[in-house]
Amino acid sequence: MKVVVLGGVAAGTKIAAKLMRENRGNEVLVLNKGKNISYAGCGLPYYVGHVIEDREQLIVNTPEKYAKLTGVTVMTETEATKVDPEAKKVTAVNLATGQEQTYDYDKLVISVGASPIKPPIEGCDLENVFFVRTPEDAIRIREAVDAGNVKRAVVVGAGYIGLEIAENLKLQGVRPFVLDMAEHALPGFDAEMAEYVEGKLQESGIPVVTKVAVTGIEGDGKVEKVLTSKKAYKADLVVLSAGIRPNTSFLDGIGLEMFKGTILTNGKGETNLPDIYAAGDCAMVHNALTEKAAWSPMGSTANISGRLIAQNMMGADFGYRGVLGTAVCKLPGLNVGRTGLTEAQAEAEGFHPVSVITVVDDKAHYFPGAGAFVIKMIADKDSLRLLGVQVIGAGAVDKVVDIAVTGIMLKGTLTDLADMDLAYAPPFSTAIHPFEHTLNVLMNKINGKFETFTPAEYAAGAAEGYKVVDACLAPSIEGAPYVELTTVEGPVEGLDPEEKLLLVCNKGKRAYLLQNRLKFYGYKNTKVLEGGITFSDVEA
Amino acid sequence: MKVVVLGGVAAGTKIAAKLMRENRGNEVLVLNKGKNISYAGCGLPYYVGHVIEDREQLIVNTPEKYAKLTGVTVMTETEATKVDPEAKKVTAVNLATGQEQTYDYDKLVISVGASPIKPPIEGCDLENVFFVRTPEDAIRIREAVDAGNVKRAVVVGAGYIGLEIAENLKLQGVRPFVLDMAEHALPGFDAEMAEYVEGKLQESGIPVVTKVAVTGIEGDGKVEKVLTSKKAYKADLVVLSAGIRPNTSFLDGIGLEMFKGTILTNGKGETNLPDIYAAGDCAMVHNALTEKAAWSPMGSTANISGRLIAQNMMGADFGYRGVLGTAVCKLPGLNVGRTGLTEAQAEAEGFHPVSVITVVDDKAHYFPGAGAFVIKMIADKDSLRLLGVQVIGAGAVDKVVDIAVTGIMLKGTLTDLADMDLAYAPPFSTAIHPFEHTLNVLMNKINGKFETFTPAEYAAGAAEGYKVVDACLAPSIEGAPYVELTTVEGPVEGLDPEEKLLLVCNKGKRAYLLQNRLKFYGYKNTKVLEGGITFSDVEA
Repeated sequence: MKVVVLGGVAAGTKIAAKLMRENRGNEVLVLNKGKNISYAGCGLPYYVGHVIEDREQLIVNTPEKYAKLTGVTVMTETEATKVDPEAKKVTAVNLATGQEQTYDYDKLVISVGASPIKPPIEGCDLENVFFVRTPEDAIRIREAVDAGNVKRAVVVGAGYIGLEIAENLKLQGVRPFVLDMAEHALPGFDAEMAEYVEGKLQESGIPVVTKVAVTGIEGDGKVEKVLTSKKAYKADLVVLSAGIRPNTSFLDGIGLEMFKGTILTNGKGETNLPDIYAAGDCAMVHNALTEKAAWSPMGSTANISGRLIAQNMMGADFGYRGVLGTAVCKLPGLNVGRTGLTEAQAEAEGFHPVSVITVVDDKAHYFPGAGAFVIKMIADKDSLRLLGVQVIGAGAVDKVVDIAVTGIMLKGTLTDLADMDLAYAPPFSTAIHPFEHTLNVLMNKINGKFETFTPAEYAAGAAEGYKVVDACLAPSIEGAPYVELTTVEGPVEGLDPEEKLLLVCNKGKRAYLLQNRLKFYGYKNTKVLEGGITFSDVEA
Repeated sequence: MKVVVLGGVAAGTKIAAKLMRENRGNEVLVLNKGKNISYAGCGLPYYVGHVIEDREQLIVNTPEKYAKLTGVTVMTETEATKVDPEAKKVTAVNLATGQEQTYDYDKLVISVGASPIKPPIEGCDLENVFFVRTPEDAIRIREAVDAGNVKRAVVVGAGYIGLEIAENLKLQGVRPFVLDMAEHALPGFDAEMAEYVEGKLQESGIPVVTKVAVTGIEGDGKVEKVLTSKKAYKADLVVLSAGIRPNTSFLDGIGLEMFKGTILTNGKGETNLPDIYAAGDCAMVHNALTEKAAWSPMGSTANISGRLIAQNMMGADFGYRGVLGTAVCKLPGLNVGRTGLTEAQAEAEGFHPVSVITVVDDKAHYFPGAGAFVIKMIADKDSLRLLGVQVIGAGAVDKVVDIAVTGIMLKGTLTDLADMDLAYAPPFSTAIHPFEHTLNVLMNKINGKFETFTPAEYAAGAAEGYKVVDACLAPSIEGAPYVELTTVEGPVEGLDPEEKLLLVCNKGKRAYLLQNRLKFYGYKNTKVLEGGITFSDVEA
């Protein structure tokens, strides 16, 4: 079988190599626009920060090594310009010589990836204005920083890559400002979780400014200033990380079904045209939970789906079960991870979401390095199906996410996922695992044993008319009556059992215990603020 | 409701506190033999190694603090001596005064824990011979070590606690020897996995001697020597960590059903006697996979099941779904984790296990701190149900275990668990997650695309008559023909297509790629050694 693969970074090289392993009799040709194939796109921010020292480490395989290892033929600096699905031919141009050539295929794989979006503003071509998409981009940014005249940088885009770049610039002594048009940083997180992270980033010296439009970049040859809808930011360096767009314009008019330029595929990687497959950042997959089309321009999706597509091309019938929008990101002293639906997404998808936010130990509290996770867990109130988690903390947020991914993929309910014998020893976790602890608290909430306001409800004013009661270990909320929960053996002086009381402690646990006691002694209108003052700014 | 709880460490304090939260009108009395309740048993080894510095950190709650926090009445140094199930009375003795008293109950919880087994040999009472079960034990061991005259120590018992103690002694400059009667260290691991860890421990200066019986301990007042069935070991300190036995002898004759002294319970914590519950190290639970009775003397099981039992006592109907024998343990530069059935256990339970061992990157190979996991995954060949994993590595073995726990609890097959959108970013994982990579390799093996000998099969002589072929990146196996896989474009000179060939590389991956090519060129009898020379000592 003769296969032409357009694009050879993650999905393309995976598919091509697997096709050859499935049958070395296949003829597989990869046409790649750039010089490098198979590079570590996800590692680029860390090259900028000297966390990854050598540029060779960014290149997983050179074209030569890859070809020898797999038996695939690789042509680099060769850009596909036309696909003829009827004749089963691809036309491509050699970028070095300008020469065009046509290639026959039995099956075609389109994995041409995506390119950074260039904002429609002046000044994007000034010196020291960069994208961060290819190894060359990362090399150029690092060269500019290492040259020593970069004091302030503006990163446009507060997604994962933007924030990773900001952290790595900070590591190099540059003062970064991250700007984003959206309401919040961290797409895929509910607003209150993103806000919490924004606060922590600010404390770490990475201010994130949201709801701001970049209107221009100015400088005399070299960038000096970024103009925005709010104010101007001095900058010696700008990184544009405000999204990517599939490289699919050359496919216009051939009848390929797309959604906003991204190629639609079925669960097997097939497009609507016979013998044409699409994978990687230029293709749509689907969400495993909602079963709707989803765009997941991630190295993991490219590799996972690529492997399946190659097997399907060789006659297997493996449906790809889809993505959950899983992501994890290392930030300064703070990791963030998420999977499944946010509460807002769950609402929009017609679920009846119920959620809880806990602040829990990430390992035995007495073990060195123990810290806290902030976990938001979202389930459907009717079916109790787990819908998503968002986790923030210095520790292994990826572990909590991976448990949730497994649970969601297996369509687990909170009942199915309760009381699991997860791994415990003091250096790793807590006797009741943070995931299970959060699940228990959510079940308590669903069963009416834990009556709360979420931080989002609190921020939206739900506690209007409630008297704040300070339930911390020591008095911590100015102006609020303090109640030491262990002294409560009946009605508390000064607190009327009919009164609306908002019980607030550090994390939520002491307030829960206080609520439990107060209810026993006849208090009817108490609410606990989930996440306590760790999560929300509370005023009496 | 009047509840008496016998024993207040993990299960007892959890149940008592939860009973009060369920209804503060309950009268709950904890009778505890020791002075301390609610201590961090799992943290004791780390106190010895000064990883946990203060003894206060070992005590989760003092009796006074606990009582105030929960409303539970606590009597310490009070040992139950008799239970009368008919009269619903418990007799207990105050260990300070010797006075006996009787307590009525509506419901009784037996959570008296277990005590270390004292080997039936001379010398166990010599100075510097210790158990490691209570905070006092750990404090005494550390005092002895800190006094400065301990050069060599013998730890009897190569289970998790024995190995943790050995590591912590080593941290303090003591040279530890770990002795065990069993075939291997690390109960719950298959033999070849345990052997691999034993080798690594040896390299780290923690020799583990197996199949050895301790026959006596000698010394002039203070321990000097440990006598064994093999040889004598000089020792300035001995830690006896060779198992525990439930503290249930005072219950003999009242009709309580037990298995080897451990109280049988149903899925709700109920014993065979009305209104008597049992939990923690003195109780049996059941295995979630086999549904057979199982003993799980772990802090996690005590807490998880304890919480459920308290709810059941208050009228709920929560079945405990049971344990999977999950464990995780930090060793020097090497963590180990496991869950589910070992291959040997799966065989014994009537499954048709198939397994694979992989050596895989634990995060992006170019990220600082990246290392390898050795993962053994076990599934049932007929149903493809995931049965267990064992993981060894410097990194987050607990994460791989927790994914498997979730998968097994939800009765996932390899197909259900394939291609999940697990968390990926370079600092955390690989684009195809180590769990999924291993699952893919196991599926390749099941589908005949990867033909192997496991390290166990190899060690048992299965490769007899096979010619070893060195498939490493560079020649690494003395006397074996070396084949650089990328040069293979047809039959290899010197290797007959009919010949039995054992393909060996570092980890298994290059040998797999070589096998793939050789099969295409007509080789019929190739086998890959799983785990390569990372895992097995191979001679040509």
